[in-house]
Amino acid sequence: MSTKTTLGIFGLGTVGTGVVALLRDNPQFDIRAISVRDRGKTRDLDFSHFEMNQDPFKLADDPGIEILVEVAGGIDPAYEVVKRAIANGKHIVTANKELIAKHGPELFALANQHNVTIFFEAAVGGGIPLISTLQRGLQANRVSRVAGIVNGTTNYILTKMEREQKTFADALAEAQAAGYAEADPTDDIEGRDVVYKIAILSSLAFQAPIEVDKIYRQGITQITDLDIKLAREFGYRLKMIGLAQRGESDALDVRVHPMLIPVGHPLAGVDGVNNAIFISGSAVGEIMLMGPGAGRYPTASAVVGDIINIASAVKLPDFAQYFQLPISSNVSEVMPIGESENGYYIRLETHDSPGVIGHLGSAFGTHGVSLHSFTQRGVTEDGTATIVLLTHQVKEKQLQAALEEITAHPTTKQISVVLRVLS
Amino acid sequence: MSTKTTLGIFGLGTVGTGVVALLRDNPQFDIRAISVRDRGKTRDLDFSHFEMNQDPFKLADDPGIEILVEVAGGIDPAYEVVKRAIANGKHIVTANKELIAKHGPELFALANQHNVTIFFEAAVGGGIPLISTLQRGLQANRVSRVAGIVNGTTNYILTKMEREQKTFADALAEAQAAGYAEADPTDDIEGRDVVYKIAILSSLAFQAPIEVDKIYRQGITQITDLDIKLAREFGYRLKMIGLAQRGESDALDVRVHPMLIPVGHPLAGVDGVNNAIFISGSAVGEIMLMGPGAGRYPTASAVVGDIINIASAVKLPDFAQYFQLPISSNVSEVMPIGESENGYYIRLETHDSPGVIGHLGSAFGTHGVSLHSFTQRGVTEDGTATIVLLTHQVKEKQLQAALEEITAHPTTKQISVVLRVLS
Repeated sequence: MSTKTTLGIFGLGTVGTGVVALLRDNPQFDIRAISVRDRGKTRDLDFSHFEMNQDPFKLADDPGIEILVEVAGGIDPAYEVVKRAIANGKHIVTANKELIAKHGPELFALANQHNVTIFFEAAVGGGIPLISTLQRGLQANRVSRVAGIVNGTTNYILTKMEREQKTFADALAEAQAAGYAEADPTDDIEGRDVVYKIAILSSLAFQAPIEVDKIYRQGITQITDLDIKLAREFGYRLKMIGLAQRGESDALDVRVHPMLIPVGHPLAGVDGVNNAIFISGSAVGEIMLMGPGAGRYPTASAVVGDIINIASAVKLPDFAQYFQLPISSNVSEVMPIGESENGYYIRLETHDSPGVIGHLGSAFGTHGVSLHSFTQRGVTEDGTATIVLLTHQVKEKQLQAALEEITAHPTTKQISVVLRVLS
Repeated sequence: MSTKTTLGIFGLGTVGTGVVALLRDNPQFDIRAISVRDRGKTRDLDFSHFEMNQDPFKLADDPGIEILVEVAGGIDPAYEVVKRAIANGKHIVTANKELIAKHGPELFALANQHNVTIFFEAAVGGGIPLISTLQRGLQANRVSRVAGIVNGTTNYILTKMEREQKTFADALAEAQAAGYAEADPTDDIEGRDVVYKIAILSSLAFQAPIEVDKIYRQGITQITDLDIKLAREFGYRLKMIGLAQRGESDALDVRVHPMLIPVGHPLAGVDGVNNAIFISGSAVGEIMLMGPGAGRYPTASAVVGDIINIASAVKLPDFAQYFQLPISSNVSEVMPIGESENGYYIRLETHDSPGVIGHLGSAFGTHGVSLHSFTQRGVTEDGTATIVLLTHQVKEKQLQAALEEITAHPTTKQISVVLRVLS
């Protein structure tokens, strides 16, 4: 009998290729079979001596496979494949953020029932050990907040816009040319990718699952180079943030949107495709973990780390009991965005007429929104003035009420962008 | 029979008090006994309902204790107490950097033999999950370098000197007043504390123990506010660094000394009592972990995290086998400091006579040391000129040969400080 740990690999894209490259010469592992969508596809490694097929359920049913490595992504067919593999007693290593965010609790319960485990370090933050830190490193803590830059594409775009004064469109095009953004970048720039990731981090930090479609989401497409420049003048940098924190009530405050980060905050210095997570714990205080959040080898590093960790334990009886998977029947409630509290950055366009400032001031005042600072930028030929305001901390519903009143006022042309400020 | 995990706690200083405070209301644990040096000492928590004694060997021998928590520090009697506890089948959680750095391999071997485990997350970097990341998070990687700020005292002093233009003596006095430096600060400011910590990190990163007394060490006492100011002008910040990296030969390049860190490097932004570790791995690239490196609750957070991790597994058969402790009979060789390569910052005092610069240039040139930049600061009344030079990357022995020649020259008064530059 072989003493090697046997693997089945489902998916041979960027990450899957990296996993095979890291494992192929490792005498501890035997890659029994690889399942791919397209066998004919040209790949930059030679896979000719592996058994390849196009049916991932074969891996899930193969009694010779101990660990199923799911690096295909998406829900269909990954969800069914993983369920079948668990039911057949296989351990799972996955990099699939969407799968864990949407079906984690069900899969964890199934895994506990079949005495196997699911490792998913690669699902958030590439090779940065975020998941294991939240699962096993901060057990003595009551976590109060997890805030992070967990999408390399948007961070690359925002960094380009700031450093090289690019427009959003140009920065996006460069990110695509450099391979940091997909041909269809929607999931990244609209924040969907971050929603999955913050849902996972929140469920680990607060030990209860969360419904992804309850999470407020704002993308970065409205942000202009002027916003980045003005934020900088006010002492902030703009970052796409996933945030999960305890609120005053039982509901969690979980949301995904760009934020103004004070320049002195460690997250402000995280540039390019790097990711970083800032964790506030009752005992440890504030810690930050930073590193490359995506890419073939950083992500494969996390997948293979998980595989090695399972392999070193898989021969022990009942080891899966040690890795109690976080299942809780109490899904966390998510606070409505109107109840959240933030400082705000507001850029709006008005007619250049007397009394505009007075009107703005009184609208904000009526709704209890107090202003921190504001600036007016030149008036265009058609008489449009651009006004940018920073507010103090206030409930979002009060701000929205003030903005409704401002929108309705005849001197207002439009409210172009509303961003939140990290306190 | 109780289902609680039973603990014996040796040491009730800053960290021990924090551990008891975090655990006292936790229904999962039963603190059976606490051993202290001085029972009469006034403490800021009420310990009257715990069994207290002054003989830690009682804990080591008590069959009712499953985990011995050693937070006393130092070698005597911690070393003998821990050995006895292991021999009696107890798991160990320790925050003792000196114990692990000096006796880790022996203790790990003994623990493996008795089928128990030793957790020591708190020994380096307070609550930052450094140890677990190196032990279990980066298994897919060949680590090439670990570099970090792992001493809060020296980082606090250097930050004060830079931010508030304090002298070393004033900054040290402030650190003592704020409780960030001991009455006898020698171990911190001379780098001994960092030596223990980098020895532990090196042994985990490179999977072989290292002899602490082979590690080159330079303290921060020679650094003046002028050095900090000039470093800043050259584009660097000064940090006390523990460094461990693979060299060209089998010998490891492990050393402890202040370094000039390029301002754009993530380590440059780590201020005050914070710690940070920068790890370079073959697959993951570069990751950084940052947070409070000392203090009661950050350190207790790591100790209690270890306790919880052991407790959740202690009922499983053979679980200790999963936590294979790193024992290797091959002690790593340490590269002599003369073989290491660095850029250098040199501040020297010369007589203000013609030909000084020419002489310096030719001494460096003879020994193959190429200069990156240099500056001369005003001449004092007694005709002393202060000259500061930055060199390109060069072997330390070449630099030392050049400095010997310069020291011997009649125009040289003294070479005041030589610092290394992080590349």
